[in-house]
Amino acid sequence: MIGYGGDYNPEQWDRDVWDRDYAAFEQAGINTVTLGVFAWAHLQPAEDRYDFATLDAIVDRATAEGRRIVLATPSGAMPPWLARAYPDACRVDFEGRRHVYGQRHNACPSSPDFRRLAVALAGRLAERYGANPAVVAWHVGNEYGGACYCPLCGAAFRSWLRKRHGDLDGLNRAWNTTFWSHVFGDWEEVQPPTALSEHWRGPNHTAFQGITLDYRRFMSDALLDGFVAEKAAIRAHVPRTPVTTNFMGLYQPVDYHRWAPHLDLASWDNYPPEDPSAARTAARMALAHGLVRGLRGGDPFWVMEQTPSVTASRDVNPVKRPGVLRLWSWQSVAHGADAVLYFQLRQSRGACEKYHGAVLDHAGRTDTRVFREVAALGREFARVGGALTGARTPARVALLVDWDSWWAVEMSDGPNRNVRYLDVLTSYHRALWQANAPLDVVPVTADLSGYDVVVAPLLHVVKGDFAARVSAFVAGGGTFVTTALSGRVDEDDNAFPDDGPLAPLLGLWVEETDAQQPDVVNPVSLFGAAYEARHVFEVVRVTDAEVVGAYEADFYAGTPAVTRAARGRGGAWYAATLLDDAGVAAVVGAALAERGVTGPLADVPDVEAVTRAGADGTRWLYVLNHGERRAVACPVSGVDVLSGRELVAGEELVLEPADVLVVRQ
Amino acid sequence: MIGYGGDYNPEQWDRDVWDRDYAAFEQAGINTVTLGVFAWAHLQPAEDRYDFATLDAIVDRATAEGRRIVLATPSGAMPPWLARAYPDACRVDFEGRRHVYGQRHNACPSSPDFRRLAVALAGRLAERYGANPAVVAWHVGNEYGGACYCPLCGAAFRSWLRKRHGDLDGLNRAWNTTFWSHVFGDWEEVQPPTALSEHWRGPNHTAFQGITLDYRRFMSDALLDGFVAEKAAIRAHVPRTPVTTNFMGLYQPVDYHRWAPHLDLASWDNYPPEDPSAARTAARMALAHGLVRGLRGGDPFWVMEQTPSVTASRDVNPVKRPGVLRLWSWQSVAHGADAVLYFQLRQSRGACEKYHGAVLDHAGRTDTRVFREVAALGREFARVGGALTGARTPARVALLVDWDSWWAVEMSDGPNRNVRYLDVLTSYHRALWQANAPLDVVPVTADLSGYDVVVAPLLHVVKGDFAARVSAFVAGGGTFVTTALSGRVDEDDNAFPDDGPLAPLLGLWVEETDAQQPDVVNPVSLFGAAYEARHVFEVVRVTDAEVVGAYEADFYAGTPAVTRAARGRGGAWYAATLLDDAGVAAVVGAALAERGVTGPLADVPDVEAVTRAGADGTRWLYVLNHGERRAVACPVSGVDVLSGRELVAGEELVLEPADVLVVRQ
Amino acid sequence: MIGYGGDYNPEQWDRDVWDRDYAAFEQAGINTVTLGVFAWAHLQPAEDRYDFATLDAIVDRATAEGRRIVLATPSGAMPPWLARAYPDACRVDFEGRRHVYGQRHNACPSSPDFRRLAVALAGRLAERYGANPAVVAWHVGNEYGGACYCPLCGAAFRSWLRKRHGDLDGLNRAWNTTFWSHVFGDWEEVQPPTALSEHWRGPNHTAFQGITLDYRRFMSDALLDGFVAEKAAIRAHVPRTPVTTNFMGLYQPVDYHRWAPHLDLASWDNYPPEDPSAARTAARMALAHGLVRGLRGGDPFWVMEQTPSVTASRDVNPVKRPGVLRLWSWQSVAHGADAVLYFQLRQSRGACEKYHGAVLDHAGRTDTRVFREVAALGREFARVGGALTGARTPARVALLVDWDSWWAVEMSDGPNRNVRYLDVLTSYHRALWQANAPLDVVPVTADLSGYDVVVAPLLHVVKGDFAARVSAFVAGGGTFVTTALSGRVDEDDNAFPDDGPLAPLLGLWVEETDAQQPDVVNPVSLFGAAYEARHVFEVVRVTDAEVVGAYEADFYAGTPAVTRAARGRGGAWYAATLLDDAGVAAVVGAALAERGVTGPLADVPDVEAVTRAGADGTRWLYVLNHGERRAVACPVSGVDVLSGRELVAGEELVLEPADVLVVRQ
Repeated sequence: MIGYGGDYNPEQWDRDVWDRDYAAFEQAGINTVTLGVFAWAHLQPAEDRYDFATLDAIVDRATAEGRRIVLATPSGAMPPWLARAYPDACRVDFEGRRHVYGQRHNACPSSPDFRRLAVALAGRLAERYGANPAVVAWHVGNEYGGACYCPLCGAAFRSWLRKRHGDLDGLNRAWNTTFWSHVFGDWEEVQPPTALSEHWRGPNHTAFQGITLDYRRFMSDALLDGFVAEKAAIRAHVPRTPVTTNFMGLYQPVDYHRWAPHLDLASWDNYPPEDPSAARTAARMALAHGLVRGLRGGDPFWVMEQTPSVTASRDVNPVKRPGVLRLWSWQSVAHGADAVLYFQLRQSRGACEKYHGAVLDHAGRTDTRVFREVAALGREFARVGGALTGARTPARVALLVDWDSWWAVEMSDGPNRNVRYLDVLTSYHRALWQANAPLDVVPVTADLSGYDVVVAPLLHVVKGDFAARVSAFVAGGGTFVTTALSGRVDEDDNAFPDDGPLAPLLGLWVEETDAQQPDVVNPVSLFGAAYEARHVFEVVRVTDAEVVGAYEADFYAGTPAVTRAARGRGGAWYAATLLDDAGVAAVVGAALAERGVTGPLADVPDVEAVTRAGADGTRWLYVLNHGERRAVACPVSGVDVLSGRELVAGEELVLEPADVLVVRQ
Repeated sequence: MIGYGGDYNPEQWDRDVWDRDYAAFEQAGINTVTLGVFAWAHLQPAEDRYDFATLDAIVDRATAEGRRIVLATPSGAMPPWLARAYPDACRVDFEGRRHVYGQRHNACPSSPDFRRLAVALAGRLAERYGANPAVVAWHVGNEYGGACYCPLCGAAFRSWLRKRHGDLDGLNRAWNTTFWSHVFGDWEEVQPPTALSEHWRGPNHTAFQGITLDYRRFMSDALLDGFVAEKAAIRAHVPRTPVTTNFMGLYQPVDYHRWAPHLDLASWDNYPPEDPSAARTAARMALAHGLVRGLRGGDPFWVMEQTPSVTASRDVNPVKRPGVLRLWSWQSVAHGADAVLYFQLRQSRGACEKYHGAVLDHAGRTDTRVFREVAALGREFARVGGALTGARTPARVALLVDWDSWWAVEMSDGPNRNVRYLDVLTSYHRALWQANAPLDVVPVTADLSGYDVVVAPLLHVVKGDFAARVSAFVAGGGTFVTTALSGRVDEDDNAFPDDGPLAPLLGLWVEETDAQQPDVVNPVSLFGAAYEARHVFEVVRVTDAEVVGAYEADFYAGTPAVTRAARGRGGAWYAATLLDDAGVAAVVGAALAERGVTGPLADVPDVEAVTRAGADGTRWLYVLNHGERRAVACPVSGVDVLSGRELVAGEELVLEPADVLVVRQ
Repeated sequence: MIGYGGDYNPEQWDRDVWDRDYAAFEQAGINTVTLGVFAWAHLQPAEDRYDFATLDAIVDRATAEGRRIVLATPSGAMPPWLARAYPDACRVDFEGRRHVYGQRHNACPSSPDFRRLAVALAGRLAERYGANPAVVAWHVGNEYGGACYCPLCGAAFRSWLRKRHGDLDGLNRAWNTTFWSHVFGDWEEVQPPTALSEHWRGPNHTAFQGITLDYRRFMSDALLDGFVAEKAAIRAHVPRTPVTTNFMGLYQPVDYHRWAPHLDLASWDNYPPEDPSAARTAARMALAHGLVRGLRGGDPFWVMEQTPSVTASRDVNPVKRPGVLRLWSWQSVAHGADAVLYFQLRQSRGACEKYHGAVLDHAGRTDTRVFREVAALGREFARVGGALTGARTPARVALLVDWDSWWAVEMSDGPNRNVRYLDVLTSYHRALWQANAPLDVVPVTADLSGYDVVVAPLLHVVKGDFAARVSAFVAGGGTFVTTALSGRVDEDDNAFPDDGPLAPLLGLWVEETDAQQPDVVNPVSLFGAAYEARHVFEVVRVTDAEVVGAYEADFYAGTPAVTRAARGRGGAWYAATLLDDAGVAAVVGAALAERGVTGPLADVPDVEAVTRAGADGTRWLYVLNHGERRAVACPVSGVDVLSGRELVAGEELVLEPADVLVVRQ
């Protein structure tokens, strides 16, 4: 069964509304409800008083209705009394200001009082509801993120640093504190990096990258500690039910790779930023799905939230066009989701999410386009979904994502503040996505040996044994692709005192790094065509590599812009500049070609084709039309389980925009 | 007599300058001086010491010169000693920062010390000068506005909330606090909504609209309390002289409708924002004049300030072109002003207004264009003004302005942050203005029964008995026009749990609300033409209305964009999207036409024609040329009292750009 | 010998790196090293402990290698222990926030503890190294700037004000405090002007210009006090070696003219902002060189820093194109530099300057383009430089720079916030630069009698005896050029109560000042052509001057836009609006022509020609090609000492882009 449903907060309505809700859920095939996400205030109206009556009724009703329950701990938003009793449970922001009560996601992760109270409540919830078999997953907190810079966090940071760097000598060396007279002589001198200490203009402008980088790691770990503590409290009562928390996909502040080992189940909230191109939006979701699937070694994951219609928090919130809800939901499944849930089932009456879309609107109407689309999809999932869950993705290509590089390259002074990690990552990903290359999205610590091609855009930080492992991968016959600004700094953001650890593999060193305004293009000639390069232009000196592409302009015209070094049975590609999408696709295409990696329908733009393989060996090809083209050649033979149609490889198909095939081969 | 003159601060100069000033005033027909607006520091040099010597001299001189005096209380700017003695008389800003002494309009409205001292001084002024018959009006404070978020205001807010919501249950229900675990269990948990509590990005981004909306009402009332207290102190000594304060027209932070009952005389400062189109600027001033006139049931009001030449506080401060001063001043009279005053009579030598224009410049010259224009107008007012004052405006159309809607629609998360209340309000107003429809600008609580047409753009909040009253108005033969996003929320900003209170009248419900970036246009076909719609596109379901216009693009092409519901003897129009000016004019034109409301010269763009009627029944038609066209057909017969010319209805007139007719019919 | 070398921080590396560094320095002709700029933390690891071992080794090595040493005091960045022991040594920013430890240039100039410790360390350094003859200059602090607004600074500000204004009456008069009730009755009421007191939007938006203007002067003086105190500590041990600090050229926060009397040697850091036009960048550097040379009456100065390749702190950091390093370095010499130094000799491994360019990169490579260019220039300097140093610049034209006007015109409310002092100053300077006029850049207090032409753009503030001196200068046969907005306010930023002190000289008064958005152009007819004017348009009334140019548009079309008043044997030009570059060049060209000032190669765009004259009377003509044109007529006869070629006046030369001639006449 594909999980289908979403966040449900019936405590906001009278009981007669519950009856109407469940009637509608029945109509829509909704089998899963997420309960209690922001319920702290009514679960614990005062520090010394718990009240489970309302949640009991809600859980009982859901159970009686035969729904699966995702039960949340409410630590994503503390109640007013907590902030009043423990003012230092509120965060201090980057500007150094202590906040008072308001909003959500507002608790200091280092506050012992908040921790104690959140853990106690998680334990009580587990004790009370853990035995209910309807509870199929635990959902701790909500969208962990943000940061706190308070004195408690300062103290916790210093403890964290002692563990990481051992002594002050290690710290001073790591942070290169001789520069600007920053040599720390006492741990107490170390403060969180804020607008009042090392920063100017904002979080990416810091005098000491090493301090800020460590603080980001620390803060990610501090938030994780809260999750781990609540999970332990649940586990004390609930031995097996999976515990998760809802991630946010490509979210910079939290390093999900540091969190991954602590999850039983990965899940995330799919609210893609608006892109005028539907295909770019689809590719970005595919990347995030891949990232989340990669957290647990390829296990199926959940989409914990998506909107059935509109968001509310954007400046401009367009409705999802007809068919898009179905298309995106099937895309989730194609990439490994075993549940597709909404925020939310019934729309809030007041406060900042009152216009966020829901399965049921304020009036509870079912005669709306949105409800009809939700219900039709629910029926479709119910009809064919059972066979699809639990499958895995057979990948031949790995795309590496590295939070350290993401942080480091964007907080670097020089060469170019316009370089954004996600811009480059998504550009390389789009090339793989358009090629329908069977892809995993994994951390730099992943085992590379099973892949044919490894792509690592903007791998600014090279740490641990990565250089050795990737060299072995290439020597063993793999193809590696990386870009300008890769291999520049170590894990403390110190420049390598030589040509860097990737130089031997790539067969070159970087003599100069030119940077230009966004409107400056240097054409790069590559495979007989010219592509546009922008932002960063490395002037490289090749020691042992083939020059594949060259700059056409400026004083370095004719020097290498793209190279390939043959090493052992494999090869290492280097793009010394930031190419446009077409240029990236040319480089990626050549790299895929040399290992014979060809995806289905690679020649049809904006049509996604993804394979999942069941435990029994059944292969399911998902074909999703994110573009406008209607005619495609069927890439495989089999049965489209959605339409029931028999398909023969090679036959010309009509696939309407936003339509989907799920072909059992 | 039309009041003519302005702010005068002779305390900044030596006595010999006073002589030259009055000689110039005589030349310019200046009959009114506003004294003492920022005089606190010299009236009360220390908490225990008053010194009226300078003001005595100033008042004596003005009285001796036969000028009418507007006497100000100086509470618009406190003296340095006050801030030093009572630091909590200074405000805490939205960022949570306690300010120290500086600028003006800087006092916390909840500070008991500031209140005590301001009231005491107002009382002393009234006691000392109240019997002087030259004092024709009292001017309390100055341009009330801004906000404070200090602990004193927090406490006052809680008191205000107790009165409004009764108990915490009422409060929690109104604010929908179950959302995000905000249920308040103790009044002391409630804090002012700031950047450190419920807000992010700024004052319009709040997690709880209900809290923020109540704080705005509270702050408007808190400022009003200060005015009321000073007025009472004056009334203790001065039984009848009108008390006013200078408003700022279309000023969002203060709800002038909440203040209106406390005014004896409405007045405002006319500094229109720069618009490249002179006609748009003129229309905006007309709207503000109408709003101010509407505060006191159509009574004549005063323009307390305008600049004779330039402002100083804008980034770019152009001079008023020749003739504009006269045109705008007559426009003020046309809309109901019985006084037209300047800021200021003599230019300040130093500080931030030293380049703000004045009747007399730093050198006191009278041989300048500005002085010549001021003096010519003064002579014109003196010659014809007496007969014009006290008249009223016979209106057939009401434009509704609602601060609650203004606040709510702009602090809403979703559907579209680019929707600005004033953009829509002014667009509908311009259509009425270009049609020269006889117009009142009134609150939603106004009696609608006397009007033919009521226009309510962006009436997001519907409260009290409005729905019933407007339905009765329509049933009785009135025409009602409203727009997208109207009737969505109640007075606490909670969405209605059904189709909303206007649905029966309008004969439709809103199924979806699409939003798009500003460059996206959906053409709307209407009366055989196509108009551009932007920002918000409601997909509506008509239950009982005529479809008048339809979308031409997107998946909802062909669905209703403009509707009209016939109800009783009247009709209710709905524009389900934000039309461009031409589209708005088409809708408004049709609505006016169905009640036979036709203004004079409606076919001549940018020529304003406004009627005032004297107590004796005399009707005065003001014709003002804000455009470039020179030839108009005279709409009425009568005498232009400015030129003395006899005019016959229908005759072709030459009316130069910026010229004015005042036709006694 | 031309000083050549730069900042060197070998304390960041092991000793074996030092060996390789000096080998490279030898190869590059590097003769000067700047040591210890940010060395505080290792010189004084704790308040009670000094450790000179590392610096001893560094100094010993440099001495042994025969390098000249510039020895720095490290007060540009305090160590962590200092901030912890004395939290009020950290600054309070404009927003009123106390900073904690971080970054650099972070000390409160009024902190007695910081002062005491900085001075003590400067004294110890002088005592220890002062006798070393290799130390050729002392470098105090680093790039003084920024501002502090703490209570200590508040108290120091009040002391400074007592000296300046004598008593509170003087203060109140100067600041025009009657306006907005600001009359100060006690010195303690005066606070630093910040975002929490007189300011809104930022440092240029103040309610009281007089307060803010005085605070800027005070802060410049407070920073200077720190320099003076350290210098005195050095002088106690070092009687003669020159003491300097590195300025930042056209840097608004610090009034270098107030500092100039305290310098033995002027120096600055040359990091020109990026301009798409190479010639504009060159002109701006020329202006800054001139300004710095003008600080010490034309004495040679030093370029203390420039980058050999890239900066790191800009958003986008392009590399210097081939030849640019040589061209700009020779330009420095042409304008009076006797030393041209780099930041820095070896690149930092970590923190925010790790990508800032250096003579030696992270890997210490000498096989790079940058090192080759550095070394080639070093050899060229070594070959010809000795004869060039110590020369002076024979000027006939003075360009006046005035910090008070710079501050005042940009913090003025009205007429136009888009008017920027540097835009106008650099426009007039470019006209002089393109004409290769022999130029000094001097303060308004300079002796004008030796010049033919004096140009004073945007001289908003006129103070002291300037009006009398410039009138005498003109009467004696000089030509004076000034612009709109000049002569408007006195040194307290109060408007003159008449037509202003320049009116008699200019023969006009300003009746109105129109301002328009940046896209509005009023064409000005001048010498038979039309030029574009923008931003500010004064409507002037000529009393005794010739009208040279007139507006062509708007209601003041035909009125004077450019005038010339004949006075005695000279003339005074006035441009009543802000002309485009071509218009400015026309006015400046006419002014130069009437005194017969013609520079060499004035007709060749973007080729700079500058003369320096040695003590023995030798004249050196520097010709620098900042443009694309290759053919020029040689303006003088002599020997180009760079190529050794004999040149004859009038012969056609090929001068490649970026090439340089140094012609000994």
